[in-house]
Amino acid sequence: MKQMQLSSGISIRRTIAEANAEQLAAVKEIIQNVKQNGDSALLGYTEKWDGVKLESIRVSHGEIMEAVGRFDARLLQDLTEAADNVREYHKNQKQEGYKNTRNDGSYVAQRVTAISSAGLYVPGGTAAYPSSVLMNVIPAQVAGVGRVVLISPPGKDGRLSDGVLVAAHILGIDEIYKAGGAQAIAALAYGTESIEAVDKITGPGNVFVALAKRQVFGDVAIDMIAGPSEIAIIADETAFADEVAADLLSQAEHDPMASAVLLTTSQQLADAVSLEVERQLVTLPRQSIAGKAINDHGMIYVGETMDELIAAANELAPEHLEIMTADAESLSERIQNAGAIFIGRYSSEPIGDYFAGTNHVLPTNSTARFSSALSVYDFVKRTSVVYYSEQAWQQNEAKIARLARLEGLEGHARAVESRAWKKGE
Amino acid sequence: MKQMQLSSGISIRRTIAEANAEQLAAVKEIIQNVKQNGDSALLGYTEKWDGVKLESIRVSHGEIMEAVGRFDARLLQDLTEAADNVREYHKNQKQEGYKNTRNDGSYVAQRVTAISSAGLYVPGGTAAYPSSVLMNVIPAQVAGVGRVVLISPPGKDGRLSDGVLVAAHILGIDEIYKAGGAQAIAALAYGTESIEAVDKITGPGNVFVALAKRQVFGDVAIDMIAGPSEIAIIADETAFADEVAADLLSQAEHDPMASAVLLTTSQQLADAVSLEVERQLVTLPRQSIAGKAINDHGMIYVGETMDELIAAANELAPEHLEIMTADAESLSERIQNAGAIFIGRYSSEPIGDYFAGTNHVLPTNSTARFSSALSVYDFVKRTSVVYYSEQAWQQNEAKIARLARLEGLEGHARAVESRAWKKGE
Repeated sequence: MKQMQLSSGISIRRTIAEANAEQLAAVKEIIQNVKQNGDSALLGYTEKWDGVKLESIRVSHGEIMEAVGRFDARLLQDLTEAADNVREYHKNQKQEGYKNTRNDGSYVAQRVTAISSAGLYVPGGTAAYPSSVLMNVIPAQVAGVGRVVLISPPGKDGRLSDGVLVAAHILGIDEIYKAGGAQAIAALAYGTESIEAVDKITGPGNVFVALAKRQVFGDVAIDMIAGPSEIAIIADETAFADEVAADLLSQAEHDPMASAVLLTTSQQLADAVSLEVERQLVTLPRQSIAGKAINDHGMIYVGETMDELIAAANELAPEHLEIMTADAESLSERIQNAGAIFIGRYSSEPIGDYFAGTNHVLPTNSTARFSSALSVYDFVKRTSVVYYSEQAWQQNEAKIARLARLEGLEGHARAVESRAWKKGE
Repeated sequence: MKQMQLSSGISIRRTIAEANAEQLAAVKEIIQNVKQNGDSALLGYTEKWDGVKLESIRVSHGEIMEAVGRFDARLLQDLTEAADNVREYHKNQKQEGYKNTRNDGSYVAQRVTAISSAGLYVPGGTAAYPSSVLMNVIPAQVAGVGRVVLISPPGKDGRLSDGVLVAAHILGIDEIYKAGGAQAIAALAYGTESIEAVDKITGPGNVFVALAKRQVFGDVAIDMIAGPSEIAIIADETAFADEVAADLLSQAEHDPMASAVLLTTSQQLADAVSLEVERQLVTLPRQSIAGKAINDHGMIYVGETMDELIAAANELAPEHLEIMTADAESLSERIQNAGAIFIGRYSSEPIGDYFAGTNHVLPTNSTARFSSALSVYDFVKRTSVVYYSEQAWQQNEAKIARLARLEGLEGHARAVESRAWKKGE
């Protein structure tokens, strides 16, 4: 892996690639077609790109149960335990409303209600991850979303992945559709004969899915547009090079664009990790992906002081930050910007991907400066409530009218004053 | 006002206009220029479009104090009281983190931290509203954002509006810049010699501001893109037509694109409100704006039952919803989708714009189905924390490795297993 001295005033922040105009135009056309022609457009695209002529867009109960029947019993148990952990962690995110009452009988309040419906996009092929189903569906369920649906492109055999169907079944989801790409996003956003539109769309996907989500945003809500995976590790001389290297590679294997960064005060560790990464790459099945990521977006920064490393981590605002130092926990409290923090050598990042209970949908591209993990908060909305009693109105109407007139909004002032005409009725 | 029977199966949802390609190209060029040339680009645009050659981009302390000196004492007190109400309402939105510890010594936690810096765009001219300063700045301050700055286009005299400077002063904000349009958004997003970049940009603006915010989104955070103002009123035969009409006009006067909708079970009220709107329009200073809004986007829907009205309101998901019925409070609990609800005849909508304490930055274009008022939650981010003890790792590593291999991610499995090599050290 490449090395660099940290103290060179360089910016290590990540940025987002510009959208490709041709792809954008293609996505616009797909969305328009699905909006106009519904199911027939959807089935046409599925035949064209997924290579299968479907009879039905919706997955049948029989298909789900067959997948469950075929599934490894031990894995079913692992997935169920993971789901329980995720649910337990997210339950704390359930928000209550509040109400501030005044002596004059007036009150202001905040009410929290769930979004009515949410749709999760699940990529096809090898990226059809059961863990993504857990991470997207459970926050929506904890929030109280009444209708949660899944959509995913079918294989050439017309089926969805067993793992995805099993994960859905564990969570009690049975409204599952077969479609992929921009057309699936359009179907969720605007509805077709088979698919009722939803109010929020989440889930990862390829560039067409991402562009389609951006396009429908506003008509429906979307989650963040996820960039390539990122890991940064802060480590001192107490860390083990093989563990650091394995964790860097765990994110590098996701995507040739994934980034893997080590921030260390130890030149010895830096050298050892460089060697270990090369060594472990040799036997890694996804060697070519991980190797390209390490080569293009991998970096070891060697700094003089821990303060320097912390400042760099806060500027990078990585999706995942591991801390493998003597005082990992207290050091973690100085991290302002990170999607998720993993403390100490036993907290390897994949634990968060699969099992600990925290959400693995996390902000990338340095957006952890202002964004957060997918959560229950993303599936609720808050409505403000204002109640003014006659007394509250009497005491304040003149002030409110003055403030409105200060802004040149006479109609606002008159609206508030209009109640006076029948004062004392 | 036009009238329509509600029971005709029509959709009353609002949608968002498409961006204009020419304007978009202009905005891209402006952003690029400010990114490359900083202050000189900013000063050039200000001279070109605001008609003033500035010596300094930053507002001086003297300018702020002069504005405060000139300001009406009673209005200063009104603004201060409004700020106190806004602060009191938003304090309840302060989030705490949480930590779930297990018997094996492991824990998962959520930490809440403030965004480091936020910039508020304030439009110029007659739309330079002091109330917008309160509504955008106070949630950021309650969240604990360390640096809050304002930017607003100067008048031809090179000055900002007194009201805006006074509102900033009341809140203790003194980092204020003179620039408008897309160039101001670019300066906040990427920084110039005079202006340090911020992590989040909020505030209303014209189409160039809105397009620029969309463009920089991802590099920095933005608030929602606000559409034209909206009011819907649910009223029965107990409501007073003059009050209903005045409140409809209070939102109509904002913008020719504003919408004002009455939903009622009373044909008599419908007719009376129609007449009242025409009558009140005659003397309204912003008659031409409000009249156009009422004509183009005003509608009275007459329904058979209250259930119908509620269903329509939930579909419309209006920015502001007033309820003027006999049982307004209990009826309000059946509203799922609205930015803010105003209960009873004394809760005229402008009370929320200026004084009650709730935020007046609210979701428009039917996005209250999934969006909420600007709030303290918008100025914090949440970081997940995972700590696994050796025991927790031992008990779970095999499960996690199995789940990783199920997804074909061998590197993930090996990372978790790598800790085994030194087990018992």
